[in-house]
Amino acid sequence: MSVARENDLVFLMGRDRKSFIVRLQPGAELQTHRGVIRHDDLIDQPLGREVQSHLGYPFLVLEPSTHDLILDLKRTTQIMYPKDIGYVLLKMNVGPGSRVVEAGTGSGGLTLALARAVMPKGRVYSYEVRPDVLNLAAKNLEKLGLRSFVELKERDIEEGFDEVDVDALFLDLRNPWEYLTQAHMALKSGGFFGATLPTTNQVVRLIRALPEHGFSAVEVEELLLRPYKAVPARLRPMDRMVAHTGYLVFARKIEQETDASAVPEEGSLSKSD
Amino acid sequence: MSVARENDLVFLMGRDRKSFIVRLQPGAELQTHRGVIRHDDLIDQPLGREVQSHLGYPFLVLEPSTHDLILDLKRTTQIMYPKDIGYVLLKMNVGPGSRVVEAGTGSGGLTLALARAVMPKGRVYSYEVRPDVLNLAAKNLEKLGLRSFVELKERDIEEGFDEVDVDALFLDLRNPWEYLTQAHMALKSGGFFGATLPTTNQVVRLIRALPEHGFSAVEVEELLLRPYKAVPARLRPMDRMVAHTGYLVFARKIEQETDASAVPEEGSLSKSD
Amino acid sequence: MSVARENDLVFLMGRDRKSFIVRLQPGAELQTHRGVIRHDDLIDQPLGREVQSHLGYPFLVLEPSTHDLILDLKRTTQIMYPKDIGYVLLKMNVGPGSRVVEAGTGSGGLTLALARAVMPKGRVYSYEVRPDVLNLAAKNLEKLGLRSFVELKERDIEEGFDEVDVDALFLDLRNPWEYLTQAHMALKSGGFFGATLPTTNQVVRLIRALPEHGFSAVEVEELLLRPYKAVPARLRPMDRMVAHTGYLVFARKIEQETDASAVPEEGSLSKSD
Amino acid sequence: MSVARENDLVFLMGRDRKSFIVRLQPGAELQTHRGVIRHDDLIDQPLGREVQSHLGYPFLVLEPSTHDLILDLKRTTQIMYPKDIGYVLLKMNVGPGSRVVEAGTGSGGLTLALARAVMPKGRVYSYEVRPDVLNLAAKNLEKLGLRSFVELKERDIEEGFDEVDVDALFLDLRNPWEYLTQAHMALKSGGFFGATLPTTNQVVRLIRALPEHGFSAVEVEELLLRPYKAVPARLRPMDRMVAHTGYLVFARKIEQETDASAVPEEGSLSKSD
Repeated sequence: MSVARENDLVFLMGRDRKSFIVRLQPGAELQTHRGVIRHDDLIDQPLGREVQSHLGYPFLVLEPSTHDLILDLKRTTQIMYPKDIGYVLLKMNVGPGSRVVEAGTGSGGLTLALARAVMPKGRVYSYEVRPDVLNLAAKNLEKLGLRSFVELKERDIEEGFDEVDVDALFLDLRNPWEYLTQAHMALKSGGFFGATLPTTNQVVRLIRALPEHGFSAVEVEELLLRPYKAVPARLRPMDRMVAHTGYLVFARKIEQETDASAVPEEGSLSKSD
Repeated sequence: MSVARENDLVFLMGRDRKSFIVRLQPGAELQTHRGVIRHDDLIDQPLGREVQSHLGYPFLVLEPSTHDLILDLKRTTQIMYPKDIGYVLLKMNVGPGSRVVEAGTGSGGLTLALARAVMPKGRVYSYEVRPDVLNLAAKNLEKLGLRSFVELKERDIEEGFDEVDVDALFLDLRNPWEYLTQAHMALKSGGFFGATLPTTNQVVRLIRALPEHGFSAVEVEELLLRPYKAVPARLRPMDRMVAHTGYLVFARKIEQETDASAVPEEGSLSKSD
Repeated sequence: MSVARENDLVFLMGRDRKSFIVRLQPGAELQTHRGVIRHDDLIDQPLGREVQSHLGYPFLVLEPSTHDLILDLKRTTQIMYPKDIGYVLLKMNVGPGSRVVEAGTGSGGLTLALARAVMPKGRVYSYEVRPDVLNLAAKNLEKLGLRSFVELKERDIEEGFDEVDVDALFLDLRNPWEYLTQAHMALKSGGFFGATLPTTNQVVRLIRALPEHGFSAVEVEELLLRPYKAVPARLRPMDRMVAHTGYLVFARKIEQETDASAVPEEGSLSKSD
Repeated sequence: MSVARENDLVFLMGRDRKSFIVRLQPGAELQTHRGVIRHDDLIDQPLGREVQSHLGYPFLVLEPSTHDLILDLKRTTQIMYPKDIGYVLLKMNVGPGSRVVEAGTGSGGLTLALARAVMPKGRVYSYEVRPDVLNLAAKNLEKLGLRSFVELKERDIEEGFDEVDVDALFLDLRNPWEYLTQAHMALKSGGFFGATLPTTNQVVRLIRALPEHGFSAVEVEELLLRPYKAVPARLRPMDRMVAHTGYLVFARKIEQETDASAVPEEGSLSKSD
């Protein structure tokens, strides 16, 4: 039986699916939209059960997943969504022991997922030029106990990265095409490059620049997450969904100039293509 | 500089995006659709460069990612796709040290991703009733050097799982609703349950059965991956895409009977809803 | 030059894309969220230009399209969306001269599109059991000048349809599978059957019942409309979209029992299929 | 009872969903992939029944819909799909009596749908610069009995359109931004402009040019059609789907310069937006 202990993170989910993540502290209280829950009612108690707020509203007590932690982050910037982050980890081969560079840090959503994937021996080097944003990310990571796996650097990456031979490098910036020389220097040969961008114009600029800066195997993809109403007698998609988070761009660092990034030969019916 | 060594896995990608994954052995040869490549031309040579087949066709030499390994698996069964696997790992909180049960093993695509995520200290317990399928999965894991992180079990899970208190349990079976008692016994309190199913009828049966077997926080989602032609002057989606792999169902083990799996209160415009 | 005349319908679109449809009456005024517009400033004036409200906020003056009229309908029920309606018209071969039965009328969105497609010689026979809903639809059609092409009938279709040999019949009801005998009697041989349903459970019931009631060539489809931000320097999908309106089901009336509705032979990779 | 007569178009659909459209001629024969069907077995016989080829393979005999006719067209060019055409008709307010200009004609898919929508009193003016393509379209329209509602013009639209004050104008060309002056001259005030384009780069060029040429209310959308396997016990999406046909761009002709095409004020979370 799993039990929640002092200092554990717990995930409280109301029947309306509204949820809260807290670190348990003796004597503390959680204010919800449906009443107060005392931490002491959770500490040393089993997970996977319901507790009630002082108004009698039931909350399920659970361990938070990486997914839950990302969505719960305090944020001042757009975050990457779990659907994209999970895919990025597999595409960029991030796992235990990986050394990964990221810029910018933003609210730390990708940072946190990277840290959990590379720990305990790997490292995340995360660059951010805005001190207030970096501070928030630091607090977020601290709260989750992941601070020690991440080196946060307040830096304009125009000046380059401190690391070399890293396994993977991800840019979540407005203008990643301006930092490809720096990215190339930081990556190991064949290393994984990734970026996310909201507009097609930005994607065009990036995929034009990548082959000119020693990158190949360029790919552009997007992921759509469609949630359903999980009602057995009335299974159906939700009425509305997030239609766009960002395009994902992937590439690999190469040593010499090649044309391998050229158009896939796969045929097209389109007359304009 | 990253260098390929004897016994390393390398990923060879032709300009037509056709790719091959091989483990490097002195004296061995790779037969491609565009000529032969000698392993000796790759061993102790840098990654991130192009080699040519004996017909002069260029291939990029790279390290394979988890994504590439999954798609390259020898398979006799439908596999889970990386887009789904990456999301499942985040939703089910799988990371270094996790203990995860999976059934059935199938060709080992999810198994391999789980193994890479939980290593070196975690464990994957993978159940499969068909001996030939299990053998293929064993060979696949062996080839990737992941065999030691996975316990493969030839077993009808009707008889139950050997493990208790596991962090997460995933069912990739035709009829997961028949094994929920067993799944509940294997999971820790609050533990993560997941399943993938191709048809809506199966989803209905599973989400009806889950609350009756001590599971709550039921969710149904699907992910669509839309690939683009990465041509700067003509950026556009590919003409065709995979339209369906499977619905993803998630839930959490709870200790007592609750109604927390009830209909989300989120409103609906639909008259039949 | 197109000019707006007394009694014309005009479509007024603010720069924030908020829009209004009015029938022009001398002396009348339109109250918008950004001030008042006098009808007299529009009557006998050209279309395709901007006018300003008394607060100086500009509105574009246009002729409304069928699309605009549907979205503008006063409604007490879920409406069918233009993306679905346009497709239904082509699939069910509705055009000038067609005779079409519809139930229920609802707010009259499909009714209006059918009326505009079949006029002036075709007819729409629209059944609705709720008198208040029918009244609203009647008013909507009157306002658009389409009332004379539609026969509205307050009737429980359990009792059957008055028409025979109609070209097409569309059911927008909670339980269409209960009225297939009636639908079969109303349609001509080979006639077009269509329905829209929000849940997979309903689709399953309908497609099970159709072949048992003399329908064949059963198809299930859904349409997703993805809107983009039309900004040249930042082209991208909107952040959110309507994720689900309804599944579309199509079939054809056949005279004898056949198995032609059987599973398409097209192969499937899925193990459960 | 609907009966097929000499000279009617009939739609024959095999159980494998392979289909054929023929015009019935006494003595003629249809060669299918599953044997021969004699037209004489169809003439003066009811629709909505099965016939068998000389090999005993059953075909359902039906009236073709506009949808079926579009997909059946002999084509040398990419066609517009029914999902897009149906939506375009509603968005551009095409109905009985409309006068519509189209360029290029292509294989005549949109032409045929426009003709069926505007007949008997409306007209379609269809421009095409390639004589062989135009000939094929003419034959396609002739075969469908729609030739008299369409004026086909072999012309480079650089020279302009012959018509003025048309209700709607649609460009299905590689470079529609080069013909906006001509389009503006042909349309009535407030008239409907539409275009379809396969790449994001083309969309960017078009939506940049539109406001500079007297068009406003610019919209960009795309439609995705997701087909399902219509099997009651195993309802699920097809494995693969068409992922992209083209982006749809809509606008309205305005008389004076306005800024009404400016960015929708609708908010965006994206930092780059």
